[in-house]
Amino acid sequence: MCRFAAYLGPEIYISSLVTEPKHSLIHQSYHAKERIEPLNGDGFGIGWYAPQFCDAPALYKEVSPAWNNKNLRDIARVTKSSCVFAHVRAATIGGQLSRANCHPFSWKNFLFMHNGTVFDFAQIKRELRSGLSDEAYDLIQGDTDSEHIFALFVDKLGKKENLQQKDIKSGLLAAMEEIERLKANAGVSEPSTMNLVLADGKNMVATRYVTLGEDSNSLYYISIGDYSCRKGESRIAEGEEGCLVVSEPLNDDQRWQRVENNHLVAVDANKNVTVDPIPSFG
Amino acid sequence: MCRFAAYLGPEIYISSLVTEPKHSLIHQSYHAKERIEPLNGDGFGIGWYAPQFCDAPALYKEVSPAWNNKNLRDIARVTKSSCVFAHVRAATIGGQLSRANCHPFSWKNFLFMHNGTVFDFAQIKRELRSGLSDEAYDLIQGDTDSEHIFALFVDKLGKKENLQQKDIKSGLLAAMEEIERLKANAGVSEPSTMNLVLADGKNMVATRYVTLGEDSNSLYYISIGDYSCRKGESRIAEGEEGCLVVSEPLNDDQRWQRVENNHLVAVDANKNVTVDPIPSFG
Amino acid sequence: MCRFAAYLGPEIYISSLVTEPKHSLIHQSYHAKERIEPLNGDGFGIGWYAPQFCDAPALYKEVSPAWNNKNLRDIARVTKSSCVFAHVRAATIGGQLSRANCHPFSWKNFLFMHNGTVFDFAQIKRELRSGLSDEAYDLIQGDTDSEHIFALFVDKLGKKENLQQKDIKSGLLAAMEEIERLKANAGVSEPSTMNLVLADGKNMVATRYVTLGEDSNSLYYISIGDYSCRKGESRIAEGEEGCLVVSEPLNDDQRWQRVENNHLVAVDANKNVTVDPIPSFG
Amino acid sequence: MCRFAAYLGPEIYISSLVTEPKHSLIHQSYHAKERIEPLNGDGFGIGWYAPQFCDAPALYKEVSPAWNNKNLRDIARVTKSSCVFAHVRAATIGGQLSRANCHPFSWKNFLFMHNGTVFDFAQIKRELRSGLSDEAYDLIQGDTDSEHIFALFVDKLGKKENLQQKDIKSGLLAAMEEIERLKANAGVSEPSTMNLVLADGKNMVATRYVTLGEDSNSLYYISIGDYSCRKGESRIAEGEEGCLVVSEPLNDDQRWQRVENNHLVAVDANKNVTVDPIPSFG
Repeated sequence: MCRFAAYLGPEIYISSLVTEPKHSLIHQSYHAKERIEPLNGDGFGIGWYAPQFCDAPALYKEVSPAWNNKNLRDIARVTKSSCVFAHVRAATIGGQLSRANCHPFSWKNFLFMHNGTVFDFAQIKRELRSGLSDEAYDLIQGDTDSEHIFALFVDKLGKKENLQQKDIKSGLLAAMEEIERLKANAGVSEPSTMNLVLADGKNMVATRYVTLGEDSNSLYYISIGDYSCRKGESRIAEGEEGCLVVSEPLNDDQRWQRVENNHLVAVDANKNVTVDPIPSFG
Repeated sequence: MCRFAAYLGPEIYISSLVTEPKHSLIHQSYHAKERIEPLNGDGFGIGWYAPQFCDAPALYKEVSPAWNNKNLRDIARVTKSSCVFAHVRAATIGGQLSRANCHPFSWKNFLFMHNGTVFDFAQIKRELRSGLSDEAYDLIQGDTDSEHIFALFVDKLGKKENLQQKDIKSGLLAAMEEIERLKANAGVSEPSTMNLVLADGKNMVATRYVTLGEDSNSLYYISIGDYSCRKGESRIAEGEEGCLVVSEPLNDDQRWQRVENNHLVAVDANKNVTVDPIPSFG
Repeated sequence: MCRFAAYLGPEIYISSLVTEPKHSLIHQSYHAKERIEPLNGDGFGIGWYAPQFCDAPALYKEVSPAWNNKNLRDIARVTKSSCVFAHVRAATIGGQLSRANCHPFSWKNFLFMHNGTVFDFAQIKRELRSGLSDEAYDLIQGDTDSEHIFALFVDKLGKKENLQQKDIKSGLLAAMEEIERLKANAGVSEPSTMNLVLADGKNMVATRYVTLGEDSNSLYYISIGDYSCRKGESRIAEGEEGCLVVSEPLNDDQRWQRVENNHLVAVDANKNVTVDPIPSFG
Repeated sequence: MCRFAAYLGPEIYISSLVTEPKHSLIHQSYHAKERIEPLNGDGFGIGWYAPQFCDAPALYKEVSPAWNNKNLRDIARVTKSSCVFAHVRAATIGGQLSRANCHPFSWKNFLFMHNGTVFDFAQIKRELRSGLSDEAYDLIQGDTDSEHIFALFVDKLGKKENLQQKDIKSGLLAAMEEIERLKANAGVSEPSTMNLVLADGKNMVATRYVTLGEDSNSLYYISIGDYSCRKGESRIAEGEEGCLVVSEPLNDDQRWQRVENNHLVAVDANKNVTVDPIPSFG
């Protein structure tokens, strides 16, 4: 159910995530390695913060596959950013395809994306929606579990100004907890997988989460001093200038770190990377 | 704001509504005459009952314009049906395009489409949805006012078996009344235009409706003995074998009847056509 | 490089090839078994002869994947035909996607599709085109090798009236021979694979062809008395009322016949099926 | 018949051509004023030179309308460039839509687009193509007259290094002359309209051309010191730092200059703007 890549650090070309690496996100759109089903052909999206637009990231999303899209190749080739999200989607068979269901999602200065499934989501959807503020409610344009998690986050974040990384982190965890609470209340025993990434252009938070005892989706990260990729060759300089978080490593480099189940990776505005366990919900 | 055409009667080719007439629905997709804005280029849809599939009409809907779609031309050219709906859409500027927002909509053996706008719909959307049954709620996949009217209809229809034309008529009127009631409750003073068409494959009901004192959208009908169109030439034989209901006449024939404001056209299974005033809501 | 299914016989629903069988063409669009690469997600097409339109088959073709297309499911579900072509495409990476490059292709009463590749086709393209009649030249709207083979067929067929199956067969073989002749002249040593299917609504011809000594693409056929498929269950009654030709069997039935390399399957208007070796070219 | 806008000068946001002005190119996609038919809804494209990519401009082109495309709005909003082409297309009814037929076209460091029609182009297409070099021939992926004019330009430019503005100008005029020569040879008396724009990232050349005695398409230009547009307000500072060439003025400013019939506007690397008559062909 989807693959993604997220980057925060010195400016890079979007192509260095999406098209250039040996196991680029486009490669993962048809040859994902760490899922049973290698295909993620039900749409894609990129989101990025352009210089002078840190308060309103740009989105390019399509319902068609990433691998044969010439526009994506050209846009990724010439566009630089210090914070990039990229996502390839595997929709439920028979589901409605629409741009509104493609990741990433944006709200104000936030970008969000999801790899995973809240199984039996239909059982909690009405209850979830009825608890939302009007602002969060009106934000929702599609019908994915993912967009509803993001709407919960918007509400959990509250009206506070000058948000710190810890506010983002606690908002995201509160949204996840709310999902599990709603499922418990509804008597849903099916698990949830929530590999989530959230950024505000300066900070980034990512989770590898699964209901206890179930299989989770893969997640990796790497701290970098500098990163680039041209003509298939990724160059990852060690250092603490930024961080990559990916469903699957973009190349064979041994330094990619596997994120443990139910852990959260956080990158702050100084590019300090911390990995902490996610507290148990309920 | 859209244009549509609906047909119930002896089998016709879909092309005789959509592509062949001088003022076909495709022509109306870029040269609508009875709207200020002639353009209906934000998607289209056709719905039809195929022989042996009267309980499950087929839909072909796209978010792209009707006028340059080669598939539509070919499908319309070779497909016959005794009940056909066709719709070209003008979306609100900046709105989300998706197949889920294209008309017609279907549920069980029903087809439904809408030309008009429930202005300030956002003011009543949550309240409307919270009143729906789970079945009607789960039916909604997009975010148009139209689809919500249809969901209301589904609930108003109730669980009765062996539905008669009067049940369909009263269900549709009850849905419209509910819209106006919700608006009144929410203090919305903006008007509604609801030119609606609903069919179950045997009966068809169409409304020309506007909140009192406002401008409505055009609507016409014609009773026919036989109807066909090839190479631009429409042939409309008089009789009582069927009925066409259209936003704009498909040709210059003088026999098209203008439906008065706030009237309802009903075609029953015997192809009797009646036109009655819509009772005042509230 | 693509998968296809073709049918000639008593009327069937298109769904019985495309959506219903356990290994339907849609299933082959993401889980093809007899290709190294299981993915055929670069567009699809269906072509069919509707009653009263035997001289002008209809086409429904899209550049997006078959597996998530709701229109395809609905059109296939309600549409019957006695001659159906269906194709899912795997394009060359980086190639231009366009409807004009999707199969099947049509000309007059003919449908045509191709699974395979004329390697190094660019080396012979100009020479091939310069030899075409204006009619065949103007027929070409895309840039696939496939459409050029079809244009050669159109010219080889000549102006004869009342075409017999043998004319179709010899026209197709002459087109294939011309491809190999052009390659030889240009010094191209790369092989060709040409699994081709051609029909005129009454007759059908299919080839499994590869340049000597190379690997070919899979091809199967089955003679049937009657064929249908609903809810995943294919029913194949023995008899000689029609024939299915497919890249991969649609179910586990043991009666599917593998077509040998460089053989041609021909179904005539009486539904007699013959399999003959393709004469060596050159 | 299309509408376009081209810019060379200090970096601007693409939105200041495409989405922001009162009569932006998006506005022209449905409300063009200086054509009989106001609709240009058969696809769009933007081309731009990104910093460090002056030798390979980027393209974003789609076959769907510009006015309802959310991606276009976002990409235009955050992307800056010192040379931007934008185009909205009106295709011939019944013509094949494909990305390959959308403008602008690119080759090496060149961008090219066309507003107009070489009437009866089919009469000269084969002859034109047979005269092309292999490089120019292989460049063509669609079937528009426009792309063929560009291929002629590629050949006329020759193999010269260090191309000057005069080389570009003479190459473009030679391509236009070749079109008229081919038509004369083929006995075609239908006119041609060729409003063309060509740039290499530093120089820009634009023509307003029509066969003598016929109606041409509108063309305007304005020399600017600085240009920007946000929230509908265009700010055009006088000066000689750049130039805008457009089918229709983007706002009500009185300083837009109408280009006379059969004249050529040239902007050199120093942003000097000259307007000269196009010499008579033949």
